Amino acid sequence: MPTILLTGFEPFDRETINPSWELVQLFVERSFGEHYQVQVAQLACEFGNAIDQLVDLLDRHQPEIVVCIGQAGGRADFSIERVAINLDDARIPDNAGAQPIDQSIVADGPAAYFSSLPLKKIIRKLRDHGIPTNISHTAGTYVCNHVFYGLMHYANTHPQLRHAGFVHIPYLPAQACHHPGAASMSLESLEKALVLLVETILDEDPFTDTSMQFSAGTIC
Amino acid sequence: MPTILLTGFEPFDRETINPSWELVQLFVERSFGEHYQVQVAQLACEFGNAIDQLVDLLDRHQPEIVVCIGQAGGRADFSIERVAINLDDARIPDNAGAQPIDQSIVADGPAAYFSSLPLKKIIRKLRDHGIPTNISHTAGTYVCNHVFYGLMHYANTHPQLRHAGFVHIPYLPAQACHHPGAASMSLESLEKALVLLVETILDEDPFTDTSMQFSAGTIC
Amino acid sequence: MPTILLTGFEPFDRETINPSWELVQLFVERSFGEHYQVQVAQLACEFGNAIDQLVDLLDRHQPEIVVCIGQAGGRADFSIERVAINLDDARIPDNAGAQPIDQSIVADGPAAYFSSLPLKKIIRKLRDHGIPTNISHTAGTYVCNHVFYGLMHYANTHPQLRHAGFVHIPYLPAQACHHPGAASMSLESLEKALVLLVETILDEDPFTDTSMQFSAGTIC
Amino acid sequence: MPTILLTGFEPFDRETINPSWELVQLFVERSFGEHYQVQVAQLACEFGNAIDQLVDLLDRHQPEIVVCIGQAGGRADFSIERVAINLDDARIPDNAGAQPIDQSIVADGPAAYFSSLPLKKIIRKLRDHGIPTNISHTAGTYVCNHVFYGLMHYANTHPQLRHAGFVHIPYLPAQACHHPGAASMSLESLEKALVLLVETILDEDPFTDTSMQFSAGTIC
Repeated sequence: MPTILLTGFEPFDRETINPSWELVQLFVERSFGEHYQVQVAQLACEFGNAIDQLVDLLDRHQPEIVVCIGQAGGRADFSIERVAINLDDARIPDNAGAQPIDQSIVADGPAAYFSSLPLKKIIRKLRDHGIPTNISHTAGTYVCNHVFYGLMHYANTHPQLRHAGFVHIPYLPAQACHHPGAASMSLESLEKALVLLVETILDEDPFTDTSMQFSAGTIC
Repeated sequence: MPTILLTGFEPFDRETINPSWELVQLFVERSFGEHYQVQVAQLACEFGNAIDQLVDLLDRHQPEIVVCIGQAGGRADFSIERVAINLDDARIPDNAGAQPIDQSIVADGPAAYFSSLPLKKIIRKLRDHGIPTNISHTAGTYVCNHVFYGLMHYANTHPQLRHAGFVHIPYLPAQACHHPGAASMSLESLEKALVLLVETILDEDPFTDTSMQFSAGTIC
Repeated sequence: MPTILLTGFEPFDRETINPSWELVQLFVERSFGEHYQVQVAQLACEFGNAIDQLVDLLDRHQPEIVVCIGQAGGRADFSIERVAINLDDARIPDNAGAQPIDQSIVADGPAAYFSSLPLKKIIRKLRDHGIPTNISHTAGTYVCNHVFYGLMHYANTHPQLRHAGFVHIPYLPAQACHHPGAASMSLESLEKALVLLVETILDEDPFTDTSMQFSAGTIC
Repeated sequence: MPTILLTGFEPFDRETINPSWELVQLFVERSFGEHYQVQVAQLACEFGNAIDQLVDLLDRHQPEIVVCIGQAGGRADFSIERVAINLDDARIPDNAGAQPIDQSIVADGPAAYFSSLPLKKIIRKLRDHGIPTNISHTAGTYVCNHVFYGLMHYANTHPQLRHAGFVHIPYLPAQACHHPGAASMSLESLEKALVLLVETILDEDPFTDTSMQFSAGTIC
């Protein structure tokens, strides 16, 4: 049976929960379509270790589809990342105390990889279902981008991993209570969004990305 | 039976729905406690006319509690207004085409009225239940502030109207789909918030406001 | 000789300078028109004490025009406050360690006072000279609003104080270096703005405010 | 004599000026150090054409240092871009009416290039001189990123072009007058910033980038 791997992170930056982990836990033992089974995992918020964990999961489960998910405190949209860059520049220490500055993730790796998710199809689908969704052109320079780059670097040499990408999600409402003025998204909306995202990927065999002709770009 | 009046607005500014009206409709024929019945009404997004409609409702229903609700596109929190000012300054025309500039709402009325809702109790309660909530110190200078001032001016001479105030709410998620980057709040969260708000008001007879000792102020 | 009083604040909230004090110092020993002389003073960032200092200055100098100026870290515009509210709600302690919560500034004072500066004339003038300017409808609930309310309460019983108001200004660029993403305004622009503001007030004898017919309002 | 090429853009998006062109014009006929001469040019705000113009300038002047500059309306900082991505996704048509969606800039080009400016040295220097400065990890997907990518693609095969990069600058104050709430930076500050930026690059022969050990990264 082909596998869909969904990962979330452990809490970081003084939060007690991480919405990405709250979200992916809802998909334990789920399946999609007739035969896609879901694997769910939590990654450490640690440079290096998080990619090691991810690669181990990729080797073990040989997924066709991987969506890694992380918290983007302050963002309002279900935010699909377009590009992972080969750079760590940590504003705060990770959960193991490491704080890499201006370091490559993969020595001699390319500067960046693009997501292989069908981005425009996804945002069209989610917006049609009332989920505020957007494309982001920076996943930051912290552990989220680090994992995203590690994922795409792996996918680059493993063509059976046909769709891989990263999604940043807002605070849950309960978290936003401690950050007045910060946007949030309900767990119900997040769950609906992730279901729709996976269904959109599965919607077409053989997973061709027919990028739709509308812009989700930014001036700057 | 004592009455709680909840009002929302019709859509404005090119929106096809107004979250305040979507919200208060959920409370039609509801009751609170043993004997409080809810009255629900939609107000026009029109200077002058909206206050006329509100005063008519107040005269007819003689409510003890009134909460007027409006849309604050772009805000992230369930946002309880602290002060209504005696000023119209319309950035865009209202739904009837009027655009008052620098006009008093009530000639010779006081410059402002404070909400008579128990603000701190409410935000403490809502945050404890995971609803992002804050106090706002400006309701703007458009129809929302206009109605809020009209409400408090009426309450000033009608002491049986014991708790009156205004709440600004974010876009619904379906609206925010058309405003990338704008925050939203689910209708489920809004409903829960409004229930908690009313219950907090009713929590104490005779409605004494024991403002809790924490700040919801702003530096500027 | 008639007097124009300009006040700034001492630094607060871990800043080493306050742009309002940097600005008003530039006006020491200046005069405007044929016979208006400027008085400049620094106020403490302390509830109570700041109003005491201001009232002492008002009694001593009997100014016709008073503009109190404060720092609004994060705002981008030269920001002319429209309304002072009778409320202290301090998010952080003041420079003397006091942190009033939900207290009136003047017991039995009115809920609010409007600025008596010719707001629309000022923003029109400043924008015409290339200074980003706007009207604000909340001066917060900290020492700035406190002083603004104290000023307008005094003016209410001293008609010779013909034009009184409050202006919030952005960080200086050197401050914004420590707040990545925060807006700033150069001291040169601020000086030009304050000169234009005073000249606009003096532009018409007897200081009639012919509010210009354009909106500087907000929806919410 | 070695050459420093500075480019700005023509106005776009209904603006009548472009701060990048206002800025670089100040450097006509300037020189740096003992023997570096400056070349200044305006680029069209047009996909394709802008890169053609730039390549022509690069071929003609054979510069050692190139800094392309563009307007980032709404940003507050002198914003040094870290990475150019191989993607056009135009939210609005360019000045020639073209609006590419999801197109590569260089077919078979790498996904991204990193700036070869000494980023950390520059932001340290500019902040030390009171200029609000930051690193950005997305130059957008419009003509600015397009030109940045074209520049770095050229530099990749022309090692004599030792330092190349892109800087986004805020609105000028006169522009921000039409965008209430938007940040701005004075032309004086911008000029000072660009002088310091070039001096920092020239500061060390042979232009080694000793990235300083502080983070200018982002969580997301």
